[in-house]
Amino acid sequence: MTSTLTGYNTETLKNGDPEPAPPAKGTFRIYNMRFCPWAQRALIYAAAKNIPTEVVNIHLKEKPDWYFSKHYRGQVPALEHDEGKKHIIESAVIPEYLDDIFPENRILPTDPYEKFQQKLLLDRLVAVAPAFYGAVQSAGDPSIRAEKYAALVKAFEEAEKLLEGEFYSGTSKPGYVDYLIYPNIQRSYWLSHLLPEFPLATSGFPGPKFPKLAKWFHTVGNLPEVVAGSQPTETGVGFFVDYVKGNPDYNFGL
Amino acid sequence: MTSTLTGYNTETLKNGDPEPAPPAKGTFRIYNMRFCPWAQRALIYAAAKNIPTEVVNIHLKEKPDWYFSKHYRGQVPALEHDEGKKHIIESAVIPEYLDDIFPENRILPTDPYEKFQQKLLLDRLVAVAPAFYGAVQSAGDPSIRAEKYAALVKAFEEAEKLLEGEFYSGTSKPGYVDYLIYPNIQRSYWLSHLLPEFPLATSGFPGPKFPKLAKWFHTVGNLPEVVAGSQPTETGVGFFVDYVKGNPDYNFGL
Repeated sequence: MTSTLTGYNTETLKNGDPEPAPPAKGTFRIYNMRFCPWAQRALIYAAAKNIPTEVVNIHLKEKPDWYFSKHYRGQVPALEHDEGKKHIIESAVIPEYLDDIFPENRILPTDPYEKFQQKLLLDRLVAVAPAFYGAVQSAGDPSIRAEKYAALVKAFEEAEKLLEGEFYSGTSKPGYVDYLIYPNIQRSYWLSHLLPEFPLATSGFPGPKFPKLAKWFHTVGNLPEVVAGSQPTETGVGFFVDYVKGNPDYNFGL
Repeated sequence: MTSTLTGYNTETLKNGDPEPAPPAKGTFRIYNMRFCPWAQRALIYAAAKNIPTEVVNIHLKEKPDWYFSKHYRGQVPALEHDEGKKHIIESAVIPEYLDDIFPENRILPTDPYEKFQQKLLLDRLVAVAPAFYGAVQSAGDPSIRAEKYAALVKAFEEAEKLLEGEFYSGTSKPGYVDYLIYPNIQRSYWLSHLLPEFPLATSGFPGPKFPKLAKWFHTVGNLPEVVAGSQPTETGVGFFVDYVKGNPDYNFGL
């Protein structure tokens, strides 16, 4: 599969930079930050659906004024299309919207109950995100380390328990939940390379206590659409060296 | 219109009370708390769509153990149907699900972009909820009153600004956003009867500085489906007397 994402590894636009021309007819644009797990959800989904998408990276600490016309709170991701006339925001909503407008390769189930069960499952799994941020916090404050690490392990134990088959989709193919939760899981993998006494194993992540999740993480991380919408491990880990110190370089690795 | 909600004004079930039998075939059940604005969203929507629904009220401080099989976090609302085999949770999701399974009187737009614009609008308006809870907090701590009241006024100013026509639906009829945000707006109306120097007017709520919202609140509050799914003002205000002291009586007024 050739990636349908262009411009993924380009420098961020920041305050003072001119607004780019609207995307051409039929083209989609995702406003992104290369290390943002929420924006990554939209990239993976667009890649999985083969949607021609240009990526524009935004500097999240020096946001261009014009960016607030794309996203009223100035966050990423935002999806822009129809020659700049349509904007969709929120990382769990953009994928659903892409399924609605491109139903021919729909990823979410069509049955309403099955669809909402996928959303509910995502809602439960997303507890890994605050647990991850807690672990990041503990990098600067070792006194909270034990507590934050325990919370992270607990979130991963829950994720292991909620994985009933090969995929969170409940089918033999990866689905909405698999694509959307991968970036959040991956952030703890990156962190495992850096933090002392980290409670999840880097090799065979998250380790032998999580056999289903370890197989899942390996399988999903090697899907072409996931590779296309993700940063390589060494770039992610490199970014995190500064990120855990509170000093992220949004253009790291370019 | 005869209300299709039964059992709305019944006592809460609490720890030790037996689990009710599953709803009969074709019947929907909403687990509720009579003064919860989030659960009220589901009641209003079910009434608007004429769905035969039985309401079961849950004691939120002494929850029955079995309730966690309906909602994994034990919150309200939860929707149960298909003879107890299907459960849907989350106040913004249950209405969308009801539209999906009963498309013949769909309230959300069918066009994907229009639909997501309604969700986005709700997301922006829901800032009135934390602002309301801030005002409640200030009842017990007058030192934060000025700050919390200012935040509430700001949230209502934003709601006034976002109301472009007669309804938040953007059409000549009330829609998803109107039904879902009404309970949150109504909570500040109830509060206006109680708190000293409250910054929103009880008469012609929220007052002459909010002309569009005042007309909207009056119109929406008198819709039969909203009346059917809401507590009367005197009951709501009566409940709030104890609620603002941190001692809610979930069976107030029965």
